[in-house]
Amino acid sequence: MSQIQKRQSFLFSSPPVVESHACVVGKKESEGPLIDYFDETSQDTYFGETTWEKAESKMQQLTLQAALKKANLNKKDISMAFSGDLLNQCIGSSFSLRDTGIPTFGLYGACSTMAESLLLAGMSVAGGFSRRSLAMTSSHFASSERQYRFPLGYGGQRPPTSQWTVTGAGCAILGCGEGEIYVRGGTVGHIVDFGIKDANNMGAAMAPAAISTLQAHFKELGKRPADYDRIVTGDLGRIGRKIVYEQMEHDSYPLECRYSDCGELIFDCVRQDVHAGGSGCGCSAVVLCGYLMQLMKEQKINDLLFCGTGALLSPVSTNQGESVPGICHAVWLSTKKE
Amino acid sequence: MSQIQKRQSFLFSSPPVVESHACVVGKKESEGPLIDYFDETSQDTYFGETTWEKAESKMQQLTLQAALKKANLNKKDISMAFSGDLLNQCIGSSFSLRDTGIPTFGLYGACSTMAESLLLAGMSVAGGFSRRSLAMTSSHFASSERQYRFPLGYGGQRPPTSQWTVTGAGCAILGCGEGEIYVRGGTVGHIVDFGIKDANNMGAAMAPAAISTLQAHFKELGKRPADYDRIVTGDLGRIGRKIVYEQMEHDSYPLECRYSDCGELIFDCVRQDVHAGGSGCGCSAVVLCGYLMQLMKEQKINDLLFCGTGALLSPVSTNQGESVPGICHAVWLSTKKE
Repeated sequence: MSQIQKRQSFLFSSPPVVESHACVVGKKESEGPLIDYFDETSQDTYFGETTWEKAESKMQQLTLQAALKKANLNKKDISMAFSGDLLNQCIGSSFSLRDTGIPTFGLYGACSTMAESLLLAGMSVAGGFSRRSLAMTSSHFASSERQYRFPLGYGGQRPPTSQWTVTGAGCAILGCGEGEIYVRGGTVGHIVDFGIKDANNMGAAMAPAAISTLQAHFKELGKRPADYDRIVTGDLGRIGRKIVYEQMEHDSYPLECRYSDCGELIFDCVRQDVHAGGSGCGCSAVVLCGYLMQLMKEQKINDLLFCGTGALLSPVSTNQGESVPGICHAVWLSTKKE
Repeated sequence: MSQIQKRQSFLFSSPPVVESHACVVGKKESEGPLIDYFDETSQDTYFGETTWEKAESKMQQLTLQAALKKANLNKKDISMAFSGDLLNQCIGSSFSLRDTGIPTFGLYGACSTMAESLLLAGMSVAGGFSRRSLAMTSSHFASSERQYRFPLGYGGQRPPTSQWTVTGAGCAILGCGEGEIYVRGGTVGHIVDFGIKDANNMGAAMAPAAISTLQAHFKELGKRPADYDRIVTGDLGRIGRKIVYEQMEHDSYPLECRYSDCGELIFDCVRQDVHAGGSGCGCSAVVLCGYLMQLMKEQKINDLLFCGTGALLSPVSTNQGESVPGICHAVWLSTKKE
């Protein structure tokens, strides 16, 4: 094997190609600035199902169908699926993939799942274990609120640092051969915990993980921020984004105007009253598989560093007084294969 | 790449070696028939911690320490960790790996996690992405009962089909080079749901997945049960094991006396009053990383087919009337590299 391999980072010797990608979102997301980049939107929070959890599985099914259709593929063409979500025991993914017959690896990376699944799907294809792999994730505002905070009917007040879980699902299908977007490699995050205990300030809790992974990426691969047209974290929101921006500048890796965050891109934070921005596995998934990949196809972005960030807390760990561990995986996507 | 690749199965062209393995269990497990095969046992359900969830993380830390020590390695020698558990948001794994600095992929495969993590760790090493990868998982009786069923203090009655979640953690460290046990390949399961809705009968819910994966394994790789010295599922318990045994015989793949189940191996089901047997991610993990790998080192087993089975339900999905999807991943372990 001739993959380039460092402590946390690797580059694919034969980069997998993005054969297809798709995303599906809910009502609030369809009222935001990225409306032109979604494959499907629904004005019904339940997506025709009877519960929010089932709606989340339905969204995954819809996004997979859309991605297959765009590439003229069917389920049997997929050799491996890598999927996970925020729900307890990842039922969003298990129930969405239950009737597909696709060999499945379940993941849990909280909101870093899109990046995690892309790296693993890429490894499965580039390593010769799978002909075609699926990377998929989702989140739903209502199922997340109920599980992590309060039932919606309770009408809880949201502090200014809180983020709004995106209702959406995104997926990418990776394969061999030629195409418009390649997964060139990435940096696998380790778990970073700076002791933040406020479960309503995920951006601050995850920012140290993003900084750690970005620095490892640049150092290990001998790269600079300017090597990328866009560097996008997802989803730190306004507060976490500011921390990353300032710390990276302080450490002589100025990200400048090429840096943005999926949590800020998905919503008009002021007009849509989402406080610090969007969050949830679906947030970075739909921004990547909708907006960013479309810009890459139009060659408005040639090299993208996509950094999925996740907060690995649970309501139980928070209630037991634990702080919030964060993780960030970085994926280098490029329009060039070499 | 020259991996042999079928629809669900693959064989490694350069099989990764098991450099080290270890397991840690609680009191009840230490009173069972496999007492001689555990690296560490604790008579304290809390493992010195203040909550059962923290005890679960502690078990993972202890098993990782034991595995590192046996191979004279330290944390920095591990390039990637693949870990997951049953707790909501997989906090057992996230908190155990938080201070290690090891690049981490979080998994969710319910009780199939040991097999899932072995396959992915194997792919990461054999694909040239990692020098040395960790596969690890755990479960804890008390944290599982509270999360899936009732708080222990409630004293709920257990039906005869129920299984007893093992308090234990197991891990294996895979690397390149030579050794006593190799991961030769495996079969990735797809999600199978036969409509069983009894959350107290996991064995019956998971058995169809085990049958599906075993049949795919034999068919795709042109193998027969007799090619293995031992075929072990984990953990179907007595009821699921009987279903698998009978259906495989009916389908002309007689497993005969080479077949056993981790849920039956770990406990003396009658004397220890565990009804249908053991369960939980930790069950198959400690049986594999303790008992089975030791037998392989003594060459009492040369070819082992280890089939991790998982029930992908959550209390929410059960309360919403959903049936229980199952999954099974098979891993071929051998004392021979070729």
